[in-house]
Amino acid sequence: MTYTAPLADMRFALREVAGLGRVAGLPGYEHATDDTVDAVLEEAARLAGNGLAPLNRDGDKVGATLENGVVRTAPGFAAIYKEFVAGGWNSLPFDPEFGGQGMPWLLATTVQEMWQAANMGFGLVLLLNQGAIDAIHHHGSPAQKAQYLPKMISGDWTGTMNLTEPQAGSDLGQLKSRAVREGDHYKVTGQKIFITYGEHDMAENIVHLVLARTPDAPAGVRGISLFIVPKFLPNEDGTPGKRNDLKCVSLEHKLGIHASPTCVMSFGDDGGAIGYLVGEEGRGLSYMFTMMNNARLSVGIQGLAIAERAYQQAASFARTRVQSKDDGKPNPVPVSIVHHPDVRRMLMSMRAQIEAMRALGYYTAAGIDGALRHPDKEAARKTQDRVDLLIPIVKAWFTDLGNEIASTGVQIHGGMGFIEETGAAQHLRDARILPIYEGTNGIQARDLVGRKVAKDGGETMLGLVAEMRALAGELKAAPGDDMEAIRDGVLASAEALEEATIWVAQSVKAELVTALAGSVPFLRLAGTALGGWLLARSALVAQNRLATRDGDPAFMEAKLITARFYAEVILPPALAQLGPLQAAGRTVFALREEQF
Amino acid sequence: MTYTAPLADMRFALREVAGLGRVAGLPGYEHATDDTVDAVLEEAARLAGNGLAPLNRDGDKVGATLENGVVRTAPGFAAIYKEFVAGGWNSLPFDPEFGGQGMPWLLATTVQEMWQAANMGFGLVLLLNQGAIDAIHHHGSPAQKAQYLPKMISGDWTGTMNLTEPQAGSDLGQLKSRAVREGDHYKVTGQKIFITYGEHDMAENIVHLVLARTPDAPAGVRGISLFIVPKFLPNEDGTPGKRNDLKCVSLEHKLGIHASPTCVMSFGDDGGAIGYLVGEEGRGLSYMFTMMNNARLSVGIQGLAIAERAYQQAASFARTRVQSKDDGKPNPVPVSIVHHPDVRRMLMSMRAQIEAMRALGYYTAAGIDGALRHPDKEAARKTQDRVDLLIPIVKAWFTDLGNEIASTGVQIHGGMGFIEETGAAQHLRDARILPIYEGTNGIQARDLVGRKVAKDGGETMLGLVAEMRALAGELKAAPGDDMEAIRDGVLASAEALEEATIWVAQSVKAELVTALAGSVPFLRLAGTALGGWLLARSALVAQNRLATRDGDPAFMEAKLITARFYAEVILPPALAQLGPLQAAGRTVFALREEQF
Repeated sequence: MTYTAPLADMRFALREVAGLGRVAGLPGYEHATDDTVDAVLEEAARLAGNGLAPLNRDGDKVGATLENGVVRTAPGFAAIYKEFVAGGWNSLPFDPEFGGQGMPWLLATTVQEMWQAANMGFGLVLLLNQGAIDAIHHHGSPAQKAQYLPKMISGDWTGTMNLTEPQAGSDLGQLKSRAVREGDHYKVTGQKIFITYGEHDMAENIVHLVLARTPDAPAGVRGISLFIVPKFLPNEDGTPGKRNDLKCVSLEHKLGIHASPTCVMSFGDDGGAIGYLVGEEGRGLSYMFTMMNNARLSVGIQGLAIAERAYQQAASFARTRVQSKDDGKPNPVPVSIVHHPDVRRMLMSMRAQIEAMRALGYYTAAGIDGALRHPDKEAARKTQDRVDLLIPIVKAWFTDLGNEIASTGVQIHGGMGFIEETGAAQHLRDARILPIYEGTNGIQARDLVGRKVAKDGGETMLGLVAEMRALAGELKAAPGDDMEAIRDGVLASAEALEEATIWVAQSVKAELVTALAGSVPFLRLAGTALGGWLLARSALVAQNRLATRDGDPAFMEAKLITARFYAEVILPPALAQLGPLQAAGRTVFALREEQF
Repeated sequence: MTYTAPLADMRFALREVAGLGRVAGLPGYEHATDDTVDAVLEEAARLAGNGLAPLNRDGDKVGATLENGVVRTAPGFAAIYKEFVAGGWNSLPFDPEFGGQGMPWLLATTVQEMWQAANMGFGLVLLLNQGAIDAIHHHGSPAQKAQYLPKMISGDWTGTMNLTEPQAGSDLGQLKSRAVREGDHYKVTGQKIFITYGEHDMAENIVHLVLARTPDAPAGVRGISLFIVPKFLPNEDGTPGKRNDLKCVSLEHKLGIHASPTCVMSFGDDGGAIGYLVGEEGRGLSYMFTMMNNARLSVGIQGLAIAERAYQQAASFARTRVQSKDDGKPNPVPVSIVHHPDVRRMLMSMRAQIEAMRALGYYTAAGIDGALRHPDKEAARKTQDRVDLLIPIVKAWFTDLGNEIASTGVQIHGGMGFIEETGAAQHLRDARILPIYEGTNGIQARDLVGRKVAKDGGETMLGLVAEMRALAGELKAAPGDDMEAIRDGVLASAEALEEATIWVAQSVKAELVTALAGSVPFLRLAGTALGGWLLARSALVAQNRLATRDGDPAFMEAKLITARFYAEVILPPALAQLGPLQAAGRTVFALREEQF
């Protein structure tokens, strides 16, 4: 149950797929030199492997506990969080004006993968804080930024997102929490559920971002405003002052991520919590949307991370667990199960999909950097469109795979996989929240089809298809069976994705519900095709490196084999979603509600 | 979190797919009249819904506990077990000579689905007892049968299977437990793990069947013998007498099925547990194989059952949870989520696959009856071949689907799905053991490819393909779009399954490891194709019934729609496993062990 950051593969994806060199060339990222990036990665790998990973099991077993309104995190969590703050790890991608290190999101995403793989229950506090920082940075007043950002970026204070209410989950327009103006602030009342790290003992203050409705606001989403509601009201000197009127009234008993306190928060039981309006009234939900890309990318990365963790554990078990003879050998001596064909198939499928996710995840992160900083406005806008398109795919496809791969990890362990002490089951339990939170995967598919593809009639997606075809052209010149199989996969992917995109773009206009009925299979097809495209690109780089004897040949050969396995074994069923995505709409509404 | 046995669908599958009429016509099953079967089903549905299902949550939450060697089952379990015994529910399919009711396995399987859906943690004691009864019935001496079977068939005593040891899981040849002859009995020593209901407080005695090695036995599987090792040695009058030298030393902490005590059993700590040899020395493992079909069918049925339970809970949630507007209507009023296209797609995919499993599961159970009782030896043998082929498919495909469908159930619940109180997560946790125990699904696929298809060069499977084609011919005459789509699905299935079977039959001879590398995708293809075939048969019956106005038209229409959804949405990705199953062998051994 250890975790070792896969530095070789991370570096390869960073440099060869995501184009770290190009990102470091963007204005403002000049300090992201190769040496600096390497040093950050190595230091992060150490902290993740030696510091965070060993706390993961107790985080699950002991979890966070609530007593008299006080939440105690699991053993070791508060101490390691102090190390985080001291090491400046929270501040990596944030604005230097407020104490951030101004590193590319690409690097922050890579490091994020490590935290989440090592200890997802812990990693969530970082993720929520990141979202809150983003919101205040984009929409807060200069005074709010000055007051909150330095403390949150350092990690001395952490942030939360208070969105959900019992009747308002995916449909935030239904929320009822109220905020009534009183001089320079508001009095906030209401109950929020599913508040991650809504209360804990790791930071000196907690900055709640709360969605609430002002008294004369219109119904629905346009009546929702965003408020900063700190646990302790900051004093003039910036230290935490008077306790605000809010508390954690209970913790949920969850399937997984036990280390992460999921709070029911009550605001204003004693007259109203003091809250400060962010931006303008009625724009709360649109403010949330601005930070959604980063948050959804992060959740996708959690899917990748838990898959990597599950893979490492399963591979280690498969190498050491001895059971049954080798089918390829006459000798009837039991061997480690990594010699058995189906165990190999499982490990290869984990590995191939993990590498595809890593490629697509880092590529998307690099896109965020490009969209933020590219000096050419038009190039930046195009990159932003691509990021907007990829985000729901990264969130949903990665988190579905995270679950499937964690489940395969359990399977490789056989009976031991079902025993909690083994740890494989924890990954599966932890992973199960990922397709749900930060917008369910159904919502992601809806966003992909109903917004992203609809917006430009599929143009951005078809631009990616064109790049796939261009790569297939390059692959034609590359010698060998492996490359031929990989090229066939890229071409088949381009064809299927093109046809699917055109169908979606047309049917979303003709009849929305028909397009939506096929949205999840479409997302699956798109994710698998795009992941395969970037794996194919990796294979081409690897083959060139082999030819020029540049880098570890075993690593480069493995890249080729993994990409071929992906092309031949992973792609076909996913591309076969082309029929289903077009057909689903014909039958899904044919039964009456009461027939289910 | 209730459970209502889906009696309408069960009856349809029993009569129209599995051919209850034909089964009841077999010699010895004359008493399985329609009236009797109906009465059994209704009574069982009541006990499952009102008795077992309400205990399921406490079974999970409180679970079984061990104190001083005594295992206490969860609240209510011992009491409901008494009802079971009093109602004669254990005895349904067993030999009337020993107090059984001699009912068809087909009926027992249908009832089994109810117990397992209502409460899988409880249901396991029935399943293990069934296996032990089978073993003694087939291989015990007349005296052993007379002594143990009546008590076990009534359920006053329960049985266990003591196979696994830490170093001997899938590879039982490695087991070390010893049995030394001493007069008319043996002294058994050793430690066994993963012993389901190895100790509990529901029955007055527990009959352990233990695999152990005699002192001069050869190494490997041929040195293994089977022993009856009762918890209490029976007195002359049949009452439980002296306590035997065996105990439960600990319970595993498992991901799910908390109600089912999974024991580490220690035999012979005080000199040796008294055991009685079953049959001959050295044949223990082959005895195990004789009861494997029933046991594996039962585990497959658990997969179906947990899927049905998850579906019912998700459908009920989807009908009542109000969130977001209806995309097909201009009115911006929030509606229950069953109106949303992707929720519908999820429900339809659960439902379609459940009905396909039920059809194939009952069909296989009817085959067991036919093989046992058909008066024509040749017909019985052919049916047995078909059963032997289907068993690994039923076990593995059903249990994989059980997991996928339980996970979909969680997803439909959104955030609430991750909260344990909701109950959806329990189904997912409970389901996760099914692809592992009673032979992992990898072992099932190996059995399918390496034994069942290899044995006759694919002939039995190709016989099923021929029946699929024949059905497609019948479907040609059936009018309407739905039937056309269903027929296309059957034809595509026949083609893919044929090509896959021929490839497997050839490659298993040419190079075993290559065939095994594709064995799991092959099983998936075969299961999905065969399930679709029987759904198509159901659709044809339903259409005829609609034409003749026989039966509930809404039920019959739903059958058509469900079969069409299956053909258009479920089949394509599964049939696309044809390429992967042939390709996997090319790459799975290309990486070196240490590269994982």
